[in-house]
Amino acid sequence: MNTEKPREVVIIGGVAGGMSAATRLRRLDEDAKITILEKGQHVSFANCGLPYYAGGVIEERDSLLLQTPESLKSRFNLDVLVNHEAVAIDRQAQSVLAQTPEGTKTFHYDQLILAPGARPFVPPMPGIERALTLRNVSDVDAMVEAIETKPETAAILGGGFIGLELAENLHARGIDVTIVEAAPHILAPLDEEMAAIVENHLIDQGVKIITNDQAVEVSETDVVLKSGRQVPAQLVVAAVGVRPESGIAQQAGIETDQRGGIIVDAQQRTSDPNIFAVGDAVVKRDRIDGSPVHIPLANSANRDGRTVADIIVGLDSPFEGAERRETAGVLGTAVVGVMGLTVAATGWNERKARAAGKEVAVIHTHPFNHATYYPGAEKLALKLVYDPQSLKILGAQAIGGSGADKRIDVIATAIAGGLTAPDLAGIDLAYAPQFGSAKDPVTMLGFVADNIATGLTKSVDVKDLPECMDSGQAVLDVRTEAEFRRGNIPGAINIPLDDLRGRIDEVRQLAEGKEVIVHCAVGVRGHTAVQILQANGIDAANLDGGYTSWSALQRKRERES
Amino acid sequence: MNTEKPREVVIIGGVAGGMSAATRLRRLDEDAKITILEKGQHVSFANCGLPYYAGGVIEERDSLLLQTPESLKSRFNLDVLVNHEAVAIDRQAQSVLAQTPEGTKTFHYDQLILAPGARPFVPPMPGIERALTLRNVSDVDAMVEAIETKPETAAILGGGFIGLELAENLHARGIDVTIVEAAPHILAPLDEEMAAIVENHLIDQGVKIITNDQAVEVSETDVVLKSGRQVPAQLVVAAVGVRPESGIAQQAGIETDQRGGIIVDAQQRTSDPNIFAVGDAVVKRDRIDGSPVHIPLANSANRDGRTVADIIVGLDSPFEGAERRETAGVLGTAVVGVMGLTVAATGWNERKARAAGKEVAVIHTHPFNHATYYPGAEKLALKLVYDPQSLKILGAQAIGGSGADKRIDVIATAIAGGLTAPDLAGIDLAYAPQFGSAKDPVTMLGFVADNIATGLTKSVDVKDLPECMDSGQAVLDVRTEAEFRRGNIPGAINIPLDDLRGRIDEVRQLAEGKEVIVHCAVGVRGHTAVQILQANGIDAANLDGGYTSWSALQRKRERES
Repeated sequence: MNTEKPREVVIIGGVAGGMSAATRLRRLDEDAKITILEKGQHVSFANCGLPYYAGGVIEERDSLLLQTPESLKSRFNLDVLVNHEAVAIDRQAQSVLAQTPEGTKTFHYDQLILAPGARPFVPPMPGIERALTLRNVSDVDAMVEAIETKPETAAILGGGFIGLELAENLHARGIDVTIVEAAPHILAPLDEEMAAIVENHLIDQGVKIITNDQAVEVSETDVVLKSGRQVPAQLVVAAVGVRPESGIAQQAGIETDQRGGIIVDAQQRTSDPNIFAVGDAVVKRDRIDGSPVHIPLANSANRDGRTVADIIVGLDSPFEGAERRETAGVLGTAVVGVMGLTVAATGWNERKARAAGKEVAVIHTHPFNHATYYPGAEKLALKLVYDPQSLKILGAQAIGGSGADKRIDVIATAIAGGLTAPDLAGIDLAYAPQFGSAKDPVTMLGFVADNIATGLTKSVDVKDLPECMDSGQAVLDVRTEAEFRRGNIPGAINIPLDDLRGRIDEVRQLAEGKEVIVHCAVGVRGHTAVQILQANGIDAANLDGGYTSWSALQRKRERES
Repeated sequence: MNTEKPREVVIIGGVAGGMSAATRLRRLDEDAKITILEKGQHVSFANCGLPYYAGGVIEERDSLLLQTPESLKSRFNLDVLVNHEAVAIDRQAQSVLAQTPEGTKTFHYDQLILAPGARPFVPPMPGIERALTLRNVSDVDAMVEAIETKPETAAILGGGFIGLELAENLHARGIDVTIVEAAPHILAPLDEEMAAIVENHLIDQGVKIITNDQAVEVSETDVVLKSGRQVPAQLVVAAVGVRPESGIAQQAGIETDQRGGIIVDAQQRTSDPNIFAVGDAVVKRDRIDGSPVHIPLANSANRDGRTVADIIVGLDSPFEGAERRETAGVLGTAVVGVMGLTVAATGWNERKARAAGKEVAVIHTHPFNHATYYPGAEKLALKLVYDPQSLKILGAQAIGGSGADKRIDVIATAIAGGLTAPDLAGIDLAYAPQFGSAKDPVTMLGFVADNIATGLTKSVDVKDLPECMDSGQAVLDVRTEAEFRRGNIPGAINIPLDDLRGRIDEVRQLAEGKEVIVHCAVGVRGHTAVQILQANGIDAANLDGGYTSWSALQRKRERES
């Protein structure tokens, strides 16, 4: 047994990062006095499950409560104090003042871990008091109570992950749901043309979506938008984003950034060497370029909690050695299931890469998630974003049914391993007809990147198509006549791929010496067509993502015009 | 247009690797004369779908026929000649002699691509002529015909991927199926204790499994085994493995290895510089150590086919540049779905690593595939194999429901990216309660590897447990009393984890100064228990995979004894 005075560690916040730090610390130090101050009624609850309890998918409220102070005491000898709100930190005295059910109390610490999380941002406007938010168990209790009054309409302010999860769950309760998103599209981790696919799907399922508009007033029965539009909303939910819960840290003079994120070094240490911070309240490091980012996600919160425990006891890990810590960071890999679609993303999207002034190459594909000859194959939409010079992968987006999350996890791992975009073709991925294709969708992304990198093909972005057509470039649709008849790009000429060799002269006339834009349904036949044209001396480029990408975006544009 | 004489390329074999080479070559060279000689009736058929057509999961035979000679002519201008069996190569004259429906014909080549595949090995024994095999569409036609005679019993010789797929599909047809495997366990890519989980599952589903035994005679109604046992078998299928179809290459003096695999360099070139080879007939390069391996899998066949086309036209790709080609290789990542279980593996298993004389560390876990508070969570069994010194990942195995293939693809990608075992904890994987856990099963493998690498914990393999107990080590079961009552390791003492701190003295007595072996259901509580014991000066190690791993292997052992 250790004969020194046991270390005293106080942790503010008892979910995810805070609790990971606490349990890891106990495993590393049996003697430490570990006290967790949680201002809410519950610790270690399943925050990511809250929308599904609201929707009735998770039936038992108790399923959300993963641990109790009692279970954490008996298993980990932790002093978990709920309804204890830390209100001040005395850095000189190394103590935290907390408001408790029995008045204020002071807790001494040798090390303090801040894991206060982030709170939903509620945009100020008249009537907003009526809006619900969703952060903890009390919030979801209030929401379930509101649902039990049988509202017929709901407005969700914000089309992010939580907004979409709530949309699904409120819709499942029979409520007429409208999502109001101030940005040009829902789901900020995606680019516009990818988000369009999700928006189209939600609308088909009966959810209303309003983009490029925002609430300015909440009345008794409606939400009034900036445009003047009124959205019927017996229920209003604010899900526009979160803000770091860093007030107590700021008051104590701990360094934060402009958005209130607690600044930490690579060891999660704040500007006070005895104070660490983890989770949604801290500024993280972007894995792509090392820049500071706010990415509130459970996986890195848990990992960082573990790191802090290691640092406090002085454990040097080959994995989390100093050097690795300096270079690691977060990709913000995330997934959401919404009305039968799986939507996942990792790393940077094209918008972020362009905003950072980077050269960007993108690839859109629409492969099936597994061999089409096996029953139940579903279409995926994939987007890969990478640097056309270094070929370094910057990020990816996937939308589809089963298997979308797998492809994003594979690409996130490829980024962690420093693989390039063409390297994706060299990974040995598991194949059986129920699970993938002999050329997996990720393999195919690698092949396309290879084709572009070697100059074998050129691609045109669907967003650039109007401009290309305005400048007189011909658009050649190489799908079958039947496919063409079912819908086509206005102005496109149809010559099915299998007839192309025999009708080269028609294309030559059409081209008028300019680059021809070729497209098929998704880009595969288009690639072959481009090769045939180029072999015949006709300059050609393949419409990235084909008619599928074009029509998804077009539908969004028409809806918004 | 190219004014030189177009190159003439002949390809022997029109599935997977051969067809990938053909179509890629056409896209790279519009003028080449490309002839495919296929000895069967079909090209580009879905070999991996054959078992599912036999079982009726794939209902339409036409779904198996992905392309026809006509479709390949109109789209890719390929001359696909079915029922053309190449019978001799004249390397001097650069020509192939083929047996065709109209007699023999000679085909000149500038480059020849061998993609003959591998044929099922049929072990010689009396009566074996009655055994069916499954390689192509004609084979599956014969099998469907046999199934239509309503056999009541079937013996499948061989418990590999195809054997298991057939077992599932024949069982689904109402046939009483017995798998006969000569090795100690089915599924050679897995280690014994992992295969035990699959065996137990198949037996629970009504499939019979005989291991450590092999057929020596096929009678009219039975298969007679070496042990003397008779297996009723109105239907007999030989699925014990495949052999490279390399006779024609050997006759032409092209270098092959002892097992008949065609030896190629990193550019898929055989010992004759004008002859390339791809697919199941070639010797591939092991990605782990560069050694020659026979791994018949579609994904690398397709990739290698593409490579050959690139090499023939002289395309230099940044992805597949010479240096990469030298260093790449195959992991043999594979997956099979069998009676509701997904079984996947990548890289080396423990058996192979030990046989190679390597030091090996392994980790067994049994996590849920997604958050347990979300309905439908299923257990996974994972095994990670790595080098304890370099921490380099050697391979992994996964068994479970949804999400087993994902974890293996992630680990295969990590190997491709050179990540270490503890690095697995640093990958940002997507999390939402339907798809994973905040600490993903792959993340957890990384944490465990980190704990072992830092010396924080020790683990004991279930296979070593009897020896440990014989030498007097105590086994401490830290599960609850209820769990203990439902089944336990004979001789284990039960002290629930939550009571452990209060009963340390009991453990100390029990230990008698020796290392105590601690276990829980899967290893998580065991890890905490080990930390508590060590902090109290009691040497302890955690049983890897816990009671779950132990009982799966035990059940197999009892069945076989």
